[in-house]
Amino acid sequence: MKKRFNYEDYIASVPNFPKEGILFRDITPLLQDGKAFNHALKDIAKFAKKLGAEVILGPESRGFIFGCPVASKLNIGFVPVRKPGKLPRKTIEESYELEYGTNTLSIHEDALKPGQKVLIVDDLLATGGTVNAAIKLVEKLGASVVGCAFVIELVDLKGRENIGPNYPILALLEYEGE
Amino acid sequence: MKKRFNYEDYIASVPNFPKEGILFRDITPLLQDGKAFNHALKDIAKFAKKLGAEVILGPESRGFIFGCPVASKLNIGFVPVRKPGKLPRKTIEESYELEYGTNTLSIHEDALKPGQKVLIVDDLLATGGTVNAAIKLVEKLGASVVGCAFVIELVDLKGRENIGPNYPILALLEYEGE
Repeated sequence: MKKRFNYEDYIASVPNFPKEGILFRDITPLLQDGKAFNHALKDIAKFAKKLGAEVILGPESRGFIFGCPVASKLNIGFVPVRKPGKLPRKTIEESYELEYGTNTLSIHEDALKPGQKVLIVDDLLATGGTVNAAIKLVEKLGASVVGCAFVIELVDLKGRENIGPNYPILALLEYEGE
Repeated sequence: MKKRFNYEDYIASVPNFPKEGILFRDITPLLQDGKAFNHALKDIAKFAKKLGAEVILGPESRGFIFGCPVASKLNIGFVPVRKPGKLPRKTIEESYELEYGTNTLSIHEDALKPGQKVLIVDDLLATGGTVNAAIKLVEKLGASVVGCAFVIELVDLKGRENIGPNYPILALLEYEGE
């Protein structure tokens, strides 16, 4: 049996960041190691290929870190999803609830073609709020989400349940007991 | 003679964004086209290789879009430079002046090893404020900047002069008359 790559060795766990009681999973040691970074990118690219992804979509800004190289490896396009006011041309927006307040994501309305197969890539799956908003944006533009890929999944936050069974999900590393 | 790739075809020029009188150069059409995006990445990777870069550094967040895939192509690490409060471990910071007010960049203090050769990658060279702050951060950590690569240079804003003659600069596309 092929040994699974030990991504955990390349994640720093930082207590009480960004606030008291939160254990932050820091991906920067993974990025600093060219081989480990590329291992993660290859695993995501393989998943994208299997699903027939024609374009990679990533939310600002850590979604860019993994999504752009995966698009490059597959020689396909990358579409950024950003906070409002950052994309210069005509956009559509989607808001979602946070623990306190709401967050909004925007996408250029010509970013995707109807029917295009999209893989969403982000660093972290927590409650799934960001990725669900990204799925809605893709579908509003008439394109279709073939799956979602993450480096880290915080299992206890039930993001996988919130995304639902219609979208295949890849997580390279799972943490329980947050 | 080899024809230079026409990057300009993949840049959207958006008048009056983010404010009246500014002509914004939008890179999202370049990203959407897998072949054109990869052409830019290969050009930057070639420059990085020639200079012997051992690590790629990119400022948040459009520096991630080009810097991460270039690092991946060369199988070397990527180091993010971010706004204050985003990196979870111990950082050092560097501030620089904007037209109105100041901006601050931060880097993890263990992000680079002394003597390491760093290529800075960003989407746009304007006045050079961001890249000069990034150069200072690299040098404070004892590493050395072997060059700076940009997709777009706004020539009239004299960023190249402000960076000075000590750092080789690559720009894939130049705009004059801003």
